[in-house]
Amino acid sequence: MTQNLKLKLKMSVRTPFYYYDLALLENTLQSMTEAVTNPNFKVHYAIKANAEDRILQTIKDHGLGADCVSGNEIKKALEIGFEPQDIVLAGIGKSDEELDLAISHGIHSINCESIEELEVINEIAERHNAIANIAFRINPNVDAQTHHKITTGLNENKFGIPITELDAAVDEILQHKNLALKGIHFHIGSQILSLNPFANLCQQANNVIDNLKARGIFLEHINVGGGLGINYTDPDAQLIPNFIEYFKVFEKFLRLEKGQTVHFELGRSIVGQAGSLISKVLYVKKGANSNFAIIDAGMTDLMRPALYNAFHKIENLTKDGNNESYHVVGPICESSDTFGKTDLPKTSRGDFLMIRSAGAYGQVLSSNYNLRDRAESIYSDDTTLEEYISNSKEVLEEQAF
Amino acid sequence: MTQNLKLKLKMSVRTPFYYYDLALLENTLQSMTEAVTNPNFKVHYAIKANAEDRILQTIKDHGLGADCVSGNEIKKALEIGFEPQDIVLAGIGKSDEELDLAISHGIHSINCESIEELEVINEIAERHNAIANIAFRINPNVDAQTHHKITTGLNENKFGIPITELDAAVDEILQHKNLALKGIHFHIGSQILSLNPFANLCQQANNVIDNLKARGIFLEHINVGGGLGINYTDPDAQLIPNFIEYFKVFEKFLRLEKGQTVHFELGRSIVGQAGSLISKVLYVKKGANSNFAIIDAGMTDLMRPALYNAFHKIENLTKDGNNESYHVVGPICESSDTFGKTDLPKTSRGDFLMIRSAGAYGQVLSSNYNLRDRAESIYSDDTTLEEYISNSKEVLEEQAF
Repeated sequence: MTQNLKLKLKMSVRTPFYYYDLALLENTLQSMTEAVTNPNFKVHYAIKANAEDRILQTIKDHGLGADCVSGNEIKKALEIGFEPQDIVLAGIGKSDEELDLAISHGIHSINCESIEELEVINEIAERHNAIANIAFRINPNVDAQTHHKITTGLNENKFGIPITELDAAVDEILQHKNLALKGIHFHIGSQILSLNPFANLCQQANNVIDNLKARGIFLEHINVGGGLGINYTDPDAQLIPNFIEYFKVFEKFLRLEKGQTVHFELGRSIVGQAGSLISKVLYVKKGANSNFAIIDAGMTDLMRPALYNAFHKIENLTKDGNNESYHVVGPICESSDTFGKTDLPKTSRGDFLMIRSAGAYGQVLSSNYNLRDRAESIYSDDTTLEEYISNSKEVLEEQAF
Repeated sequence: MTQNLKLKLKMSVRTPFYYYDLALLENTLQSMTEAVTNPNFKVHYAIKANAEDRILQTIKDHGLGADCVSGNEIKKALEIGFEPQDIVLAGIGKSDEELDLAISHGIHSINCESIEELEVINEIAERHNAIANIAFRINPNVDAQTHHKITTGLNENKFGIPITELDAAVDEILQHKNLALKGIHFHIGSQILSLNPFANLCQQANNVIDNLKARGIFLEHINVGGGLGINYTDPDAQLIPNFIEYFKVFEKFLRLEKGQTVHFELGRSIVGQAGSLISKVLYVKKGANSNFAIIDAGMTDLMRPALYNAFHKIENLTKDGNNESYHVVGPICESSDTFGKTDLPKTSRGDFLMIRSAGAYGQVLSSNYNLRDRAESIYSDDTTLEEYISNSKEVLEEQAF
């Protein structure tokens, strides 16, 4: 490590921070792209999972497109260098400004989620003297067998056009001269660990393709969304998801015609395991029923446990030895600010804990609640975690009274 | 309205936004201060509920102190002009930097939540050659009968010193020459609608006061925390909480000696009803089972429904007439991004909805998820809501294609 970097680290030492393993991200991207054997399969990255510049840059460099859910995500994708024809816009509540941005840049496709939206898109496209490429997001009523807050493909969910409304939606689109129906889009949820829901999705997609073909409509692209889960319980057992099996399901069950491409929108499975939240233990406290390890990271830094009761594996980076039981909690004044009960080596003040599998839906959901500062990002290309922590400790000791 | 303001409004029109009724805030503060008839009762405002500058300024001008839960909240309180002797710091995970800040400014009290913390505070106070004023936060094991995520006074919660550990904590504090035990602190939760938990809390406080008195320790202040709830279901039925009945409970049940003051930490009851989230309807969409009103505010602007399943009353500001049933949802790609099912007058694109009772734990919990911009604050002293919306509509119509 150069003196310069060392100095920079010393000056910026602050916990908690996100640590991104860019080598793992590279390996994950390589495994994923190698698993795509069909030249008509095209993978987009779902920016909402993690929108840090260096993460996006790495992903773009591997040739993925960008799946955006807001105007600001489109702006970010363009800024990083994604080509407009590799950008898709989805979302049930696109504002006029967001649609204007998408159409003026001529992005690949707007995934339309309601008949009501078509008229608005047509008006804006007309003003730009442009044809907006539309994919219908269809709600297939497929149970993704995941947490209810991230299940998105059931009838009662707010997403997409119900399959029963599809004919009416096609009638509507044909009436608008500034709209072109180019594809269909599905997204049944996220953190899906069984491949069966994806197989069911393929059957539904085949039916839709057949129905539209019977009406003389040829679909250029079938967007099957994302949703592939990761191993939160034991991340080291599977740092890289089984992309081969995942893509095989679509290869096997989706009936494609010549000239049809399949789009995938992967987020968590690309970036989830590459990020960890690193936090310092402030106090170890004996409660009435548990031992609490109170750390300086909270729900403001990682919202998933409070919001979804999500489990993240926790490791003590600075201690070895026999395990004891701890309730790991953050500093926020809410009982939901907890990272769960876990076994750790005997833990004490000043130890560093690593909250694993936090690369996706971690930093993006952070807030400034309690006026807390946001956690910074540290990258493996600049420093190893060991170096960084040993520098932190050195600085802490120098600062000690 | 001046041309200048009109111009400014036109330039800044953007939904969603928070609208703060400063007149209601003033009235609430006045009712509250009038309800405090005991000169030994002192009210602090819990900054974590809402930390907007103009809200804080108004509250400070009514003579309240500040209850802080982070170093940045102390900095903000000082910046607004709260005196150090009117500032209290609480929180189970105070960092060394935060304690350093509190001690160097000589704030009124540090509410200490564990025996382990005492040693750290003593070290820092010693370095400053200061005596740190300590209040023990005691976990009274009182059920606040509220949502489990905001219940904080039960044995299984992470907060405070268990009552069984109090003697050991006193032993510890007496060994440290830079610590002075000045008070005790309780906080059993928030959004508490029955007064019984507060009466139970008083009984517990009396026991603690007696026990410490038997050890020859006189407490200068008893901090009973906050927690008084507001009427989310029907805000207009009770825009201002019944502060008279609330303070009466403590007057009646808390046994005080001469020279003892009681500190209250109110947040939600002060600021909750004074804030609303205003959002525009983007689309009204027929789902398979419900009609969805898709609005441009989401969980990124108001997290309470997604996080606590919280109910907020919703009104259509731009329509009258008979009610129909709507599922009001935001634009974020998660099924938890919903504001619930409600009856509204027949609602259409371009209508403005008002999500009530959003002044507390609203804006402070907002995030930039999906790279969304944060909602701005608009204040009743600058413009009425009617003026603001009619200006917005005018601008929207001018911008229309």
